[in-house]
Amino acid sequence: MTDPRQQALDYAHQHNDRFLEELKDFLAIPSISTSPEYNADTQRAAEWVAAQLKSLGMEHAQIMPTGGHPVVYGEQLRAGKAAPTVLIYGHYDVQPVDPLELWTTDPFKAEVRGENLYARGSSDMKGQVIASLKAVEAIVRTSGLPVNLKWLIEGEEEIGSKNLDEFIKKHKDMLTADFCINPDAGMINADSPTITYGLRGLAYFEIRIYGPDRDLHSGLFGGTVHNPAQALAELIAGMHDKKGRIILPGFYDKVRKSSKAERADIARLPTTAKHFIKQTGVPALWGEPDYTPEERVSIRPTLEVNGLLSGFTGEGSKTVLPAWAMAKVSCRLVPDQTPELIQKAMAKYMKKHAPKTIRWEIKYISGSGAAVTPRDSMGVRALAMGLEQTWGKRPLFKREGGSIGVVVQLQKHVGVESVLTGFGLPEDNAHSPNEKLNLPTWRKGIDAFIHTIFNLT
Amino acid sequence: MTDPRQQALDYAHQHNDRFLEELKDFLAIPSISTSPEYNADTQRAAEWVAAQLKSLGMEHAQIMPTGGHPVVYGEQLRAGKAAPTVLIYGHYDVQPVDPLELWTTDPFKAEVRGENLYARGSSDMKGQVIASLKAVEAIVRTSGLPVNLKWLIEGEEEIGSKNLDEFIKKHKDMLTADFCINPDAGMINADSPTITYGLRGLAYFEIRIYGPDRDLHSGLFGGTVHNPAQALAELIAGMHDKKGRIILPGFYDKVRKSSKAERADIARLPTTAKHFIKQTGVPALWGEPDYTPEERVSIRPTLEVNGLLSGFTGEGSKTVLPAWAMAKVSCRLVPDQTPELIQKAMAKYMKKHAPKTIRWEIKYISGSGAAVTPRDSMGVRALAMGLEQTWGKRPLFKREGGSIGVVVQLQKHVGVESVLTGFGLPEDNAHSPNEKLNLPTWRKGIDAFIHTIFNLT
Repeated sequence: MTDPRQQALDYAHQHNDRFLEELKDFLAIPSISTSPEYNADTQRAAEWVAAQLKSLGMEHAQIMPTGGHPVVYGEQLRAGKAAPTVLIYGHYDVQPVDPLELWTTDPFKAEVRGENLYARGSSDMKGQVIASLKAVEAIVRTSGLPVNLKWLIEGEEEIGSKNLDEFIKKHKDMLTADFCINPDAGMINADSPTITYGLRGLAYFEIRIYGPDRDLHSGLFGGTVHNPAQALAELIAGMHDKKGRIILPGFYDKVRKSSKAERADIARLPTTAKHFIKQTGVPALWGEPDYTPEERVSIRPTLEVNGLLSGFTGEGSKTVLPAWAMAKVSCRLVPDQTPELIQKAMAKYMKKHAPKTIRWEIKYISGSGAAVTPRDSMGVRALAMGLEQTWGKRPLFKREGGSIGVVVQLQKHVGVESVLTGFGLPEDNAHSPNEKLNLPTWRKGIDAFIHTIFNLT
Repeated sequence: MTDPRQQALDYAHQHNDRFLEELKDFLAIPSISTSPEYNADTQRAAEWVAAQLKSLGMEHAQIMPTGGHPVVYGEQLRAGKAAPTVLIYGHYDVQPVDPLELWTTDPFKAEVRGENLYARGSSDMKGQVIASLKAVEAIVRTSGLPVNLKWLIEGEEEIGSKNLDEFIKKHKDMLTADFCINPDAGMINADSPTITYGLRGLAYFEIRIYGPDRDLHSGLFGGTVHNPAQALAELIAGMHDKKGRIILPGFYDKVRKSSKAERADIARLPTTAKHFIKQTGVPALWGEPDYTPEERVSIRPTLEVNGLLSGFTGEGSKTVLPAWAMAKVSCRLVPDQTPELIQKAMAKYMKKHAPKTIRWEIKYISGSGAAVTPRDSMGVRALAMGLEQTWGKRPLFKREGGSIGVVVQLQKHVGVESVLTGFGLPEDNAHSPNEKLNLPTWRKGIDAFIHTIFNLT
């Protein structure tokens, strides 16, 4: 009797042409979530995914309503209580296609040219959804699933997952799982399978400084009133020390220290200083000298000014001493910082440093905690092994600097941490004309998913 | 034979009722310079003034064209070369009258109620123009003028004297004089005749800080790129020390030191700290501790932020790391600072302090030098004596924090310094509904002008 894993891999290789045809069918549906004129197509894409889940023997496979585009759900929980439960996340919606004239071929008639398949959504992320569906098909049609599976395929990722939070909160019991695989994160390059195991959180503020009760003539009053724009500049300037460390009291108190092993893995990433300079066009990088640039955007918390506004900002000159000044300031958080902690730190800073010559106000606008799935957790280990079994090399491990709606929502409402990966490449033109999917990489992705599922047993 | 001065004063007192009627005629002309539909009236007001000058025996009395409303000019240079030449400035245009419903009586039908005459332009400044015309009439009709006189009465003061610069430049020989009396500055209160003998100058900049070549995602890049809004805040914060002194290299090098006598006169002004707090509504004043608030807005140079702009400034949150940040920054100058000197100081500061992590640019937008007529100059002494002879007390001496177009233009193009005074009161509702002129003060003003002219001989 052949090894179940090998049976599934063989099945996948034998049926690969059909998998590609099914991907083409899925890509032919213009499920552009942001455009109401495509609502019927977006609905059709949801139905298409639900039909796939049904054909794979998933139970309760269905389209579930939200305040916007529906969520597709399905599950198969026959592996027993000892086996882990994996939630697979995906989205069936795609970005708009403008400017259409820059596309070489019709964005909704997928075409293979060389090693690539060109179509809107091929990389982001219908190709990834099909890879996971087909990996599961290969197992279901051979030895059967050795783990419990749940699917959460949304239709609003490209418009900010705006109704997903409510959906997840409402269906948290249905969505419980040991971890979530989210294949929407892509690879650093075709030779470097990549696991994203952490995201930074956020605490977003608006700081307002109030001076005189109206805009004053800067000639008549300049010199005897603390200019609110200057006071704001002083307060912002004081939030970092000269080394780029953040001065807010207690800001670093809860920062979890990265292990040597984690930092060694970060050092393997190709995102060198040169990379960041090329990506941003700045004359020189900036930040905490004790950390590499990649560490500074991933394992370190930050404080950024997102916006400034005060007084006269038009062409030419107006000699006004402004009545008020405003800054949008946000912090990126790492475990175990919480938005609540950062709110306290900001309030303490302002109380300590704001001068008596002005009035001030902090509005907390929004925020979310950081998310990190431990590198030695079951999910990360199974996926890392699966990627290595496929590519023949250890994957890269990274933490992202931003946050992702569904990851935060699953963590917050269901307590499920996400492991992110994917087989899209940086050069795939996601969100741009001529989006493509590299087919050899995609095929490896199917294999890697099969391995990962067996690695969990 | 009666003293010529007393003859003139007697004439003024005897003809005062007629003076008032003539002022009412002048006030009946709605010379609103900002509204094209009043262009014919504005022209008529210029002609009215020219006719007055002619009737006083002024030579070359005429309306002279500018790019906008005309200037009225006239002169009488028969007092001989040994006698001083005085240029009298005024403006015949007035502010608009909206909201009209808040006026108790028609703004262009002057009405006496109690001690006051109510009409648009009564205080600002047709009343002042008539006071100077009638003082001169009183002298001309009695002993004759003991000084040489020139008149410059413009029609665009309320819209920024925008064509006057060109006019003064073109007619600089015609306008040469020993000094200019400008009665558009008003009194601190009815018991305090006031001389404004200095104005601050200006140097206005736009500072731009450039970081990444486009707005970045603050999650993906925050921590490794110097945020331009933060860099701008740091640079602005560094422009003052903790005592409110300006750090720009060489900024104070040319500041003329005020004498003890000058500072003692400033200390007599009623503009105390309490006054400034009441006027501005700030919780506490700010500025150089070695100077009083009134000194800080008059004899000390300043640096103000007039505007700030960067990144996202709308409602809510956008996690952008902005590509650039901008500040409008302007300095108020005192003698002998020049805009050129301040441009150099700003450039030096930026070269010294701007970090290598950003790019920067300074645009010099506009500026003008400070103006001070020495307190012991002929003009200030004659006027001070004239005010004291009329009110029976020494006038207040002040320097204004702002700058005034015509004062700068006469200084720059003709080398003529201005002495500012006037008989308008803070409660006269200049620029507001129910503008009024306090008639007893106005009558004193005519006397004071008569005294001043005789004091020059």
